[in-house]
Amino acid sequence: MNAEIIAVGSEMPTSQRLDTNSLYLTDELNALGIEVVRKCVIGDELDRLADVVRRAAARSDLVILSGGLGPTEDDVTRTAVARALGRSEIFHPEIQDRLEERFRAIGRKMSEINRRQAYVVEGAEILPNDRGTAPGQWIEEGGCVIVLLPGPPHELTGMFSQHCLPRLAPRAPKLTIQTLVLRVAGMPESDLDQLISPVYKKYENPVTTILAAAGDIQVRLRARCETVAEASRLLAEVAGPIEELLGDRIYSRNGDPLEVVTGQMLRRAKATLATAESCTGGLLAERITSVAGSSEYFLGGFVTYSSRLKMELLGVSSDLLARHGAVSEQAAEAMAAGARQRTSSDYALSITGVAGPGSGGEAAPVGTVFIGIADQSGSHANRRQFLGDRSRIRAFAVQLALDTLRRRLTGRL
Amino acid sequence: MNAEIIAVGSEMPTSQRLDTNSLYLTDELNALGIEVVRKCVIGDELDRLADVVRRAAARSDLVILSGGLGPTEDDVTRTAVARALGRSEIFHPEIQDRLEERFRAIGRKMSEINRRQAYVVEGAEILPNDRGTAPGQWIEEGGCVIVLLPGPPHELTGMFSQHCLPRLAPRAPKLTIQTLVLRVAGMPESDLDQLISPVYKKYENPVTTILAAAGDIQVRLRARCETVAEASRLLAEVAGPIEELLGDRIYSRNGDPLEVVTGQMLRRAKATLATAESCTGGLLAERITSVAGSSEYFLGGFVTYSSRLKMELLGVSSDLLARHGAVSEQAAEAMAAGARQRTSSDYALSITGVAGPGSGGEAAPVGTVFIGIADQSGSHANRRQFLGDRSRIRAFAVQLALDTLRRRLTGRL
Repeated sequence: MNAEIIAVGSEMPTSQRLDTNSLYLTDELNALGIEVVRKCVIGDELDRLADVVRRAAARSDLVILSGGLGPTEDDVTRTAVARALGRSEIFHPEIQDRLEERFRAIGRKMSEINRRQAYVVEGAEILPNDRGTAPGQWIEEGGCVIVLLPGPPHELTGMFSQHCLPRLAPRAPKLTIQTLVLRVAGMPESDLDQLISPVYKKYENPVTTILAAAGDIQVRLRARCETVAEASRLLAEVAGPIEELLGDRIYSRNGDPLEVVTGQMLRRAKATLATAESCTGGLLAERITSVAGSSEYFLGGFVTYSSRLKMELLGVSSDLLARHGAVSEQAAEAMAAGARQRTSSDYALSITGVAGPGSGGEAAPVGTVFIGIADQSGSHANRRQFLGDRSRIRAFAVQLALDTLRRRLTGRL
Repeated sequence: MNAEIIAVGSEMPTSQRLDTNSLYLTDELNALGIEVVRKCVIGDELDRLADVVRRAAARSDLVILSGGLGPTEDDVTRTAVARALGRSEIFHPEIQDRLEERFRAIGRKMSEINRRQAYVVEGAEILPNDRGTAPGQWIEEGGCVIVLLPGPPHELTGMFSQHCLPRLAPRAPKLTIQTLVLRVAGMPESDLDQLISPVYKKYENPVTTILAAAGDIQVRLRARCETVAEASRLLAEVAGPIEELLGDRIYSRNGDPLEVVTGQMLRRAKATLATAESCTGGLLAERITSVAGSSEYFLGGFVTYSSRLKMELLGVSSDLLARHGAVSEQAAEAMAAGARQRTSSDYALSITGVAGPGSGGEAAPVGTVFIGIADQSGSHANRRQFLGDRSRIRAFAVQLALDTLRRRLTGRL
């Protein structure tokens, strides 16, 4: 069973937008054993889009369109699909009623143009949208299923999981695609690949790909088999030796990011955490609190951008700052200790460094970052040197800080 | 002159890879007045790719393929293009010599499989690759130019800027594409569209598109004209009435995000800022400090996730929290006032709310957020209600907090 994904919208083929919806859809479809063979990003030009839909429907089993269901003139997906299939568009008063009610509920009056969203391709099933105004549509044409989904990611994911997955599952092939993701922090991609490629190169199934972001590598194994058991067996056969080679550099075996992994460890240990950040400006706290329920273990944090606040809020001494500078091992240690003391947390992480583009002088070139950790045993910091621009250096620093906490919590540091 | 971009590779249609090459190419082509009308991401299946190339070459003036030029069996771009055009592949010994030399220079022996990279589509011009092994190719077929570029971004950008731009410039239309971006905070997309569509609907050039993210709308005008002056005149003609309608809801006329706009205002006013965050967990401070040079006006911030820290770090009284709760107008006001007082900043922003998925009880359903601002005139907070998931509610809250600061700094609040 082959699928195509078509992302629609005048803003799509410009450089402002990455089509992240198709990544989500690909993962979900793969999990059902459905291969995505083609993705297309196309502007909202009616004839061109109708032509693309016509061809896609002729050659593929499943065509998913995202976007172009809004209320404005340039939302042409409905009309393009109707034209491609030679069907008309039908006005559904019950959709309009639901839209009006939705607007009323938040104390607003529906705009006249939202009426456009109550039109549905003849013969389509309507997919309710609990998170927005545009309903989705499910259309069958010959052997092909055509699905229209709204563009905003939270609307698309909600609608797809609730209303499309249950319809697709019974049609999906008897093949299953299973994935295993090992995540590794703070290792250069080429070193990692050199280490583990002798293992995975021997296998065509599973397929192994390595995906590297700032300080974070994912080793992804993807097995296609007739049964889940067979896929799991194959995945284990390849993952086993890889895990042995990478050892405790692996922080996650199920795809969870570091903020989730460390959060679970803190919860299990009934321990609390605080943060003190300089160059990362709140990014560390932001990542920790992006996890729902993080208030169970995260007490709070300090963003001490100025030296004065490092002194006043964290108790870093002016003497220390004068002697070693704000970007130093000593400052990082004092910041972590101060954050721990001021919040009465069990653990505290600190980050101070030069994210650039301005330099911190010769002693601390751009990319120099000190990461500190404090607990009952005291406070310690390590120097790191990262390459890249401001946002990459910040991302690297936060990743390494979280990994420092993981190592401490597992007794490896 | 219309262009299509085709990204090739077995890893492409899976969820691990975003096709950032096409974003770069789109920007470069637009600057030459070349429109990108379609983008496609396709796996390395020979027949399917040859079919896509054949169709693209038949309908477009320029077809750029990226990826699939490597040495392995699944690098099929060369062969697919040759097949699509009915041409053969020719072995070029001088390419092999260059490859062998390249490997020798880094002390390695060329693998036998790299010989595959010395094959070139009959009649193609060879585009040298200074940053990798795969040479590019420039092919003319009828009225169409087909360009083969390597997939790794640093190789692609180097080759495109050095060897493709000079070849494309003389063929590019005498047209220029100019863009103007107005950014608006905290207005529903449909309200905005209803307000301004009577203006922009009258024009086919510039093309107007509306791009909405959490609490942030971009109105993008894109004019295609023979001269820059003519494009600027047209943009001003349409933007003028739109700006009048949107008034001070527009926070930026050059595409700058709110954190840059407010940063410039603070710098001009020689004023300083601090933050106190609960549900956004550092995201506000993170956005403010994502701007290089923000240390000039941003002193620091507090992430007070627990009630205890709201009291200890910000001086919010236990009495206030007991009476009104941590998610309340009073708490937001006290947090802003506390952050301002503890940091001696001129301005302080605060955010407290329920980002979900867990609810804060009946008084504060998921999505309830209070945004506070403190300055010499005192501290004030406003209640907002946002829809969406945790990350969306957090993004909305931060956007509205920055806009609150903007309005205060421009005397509109």
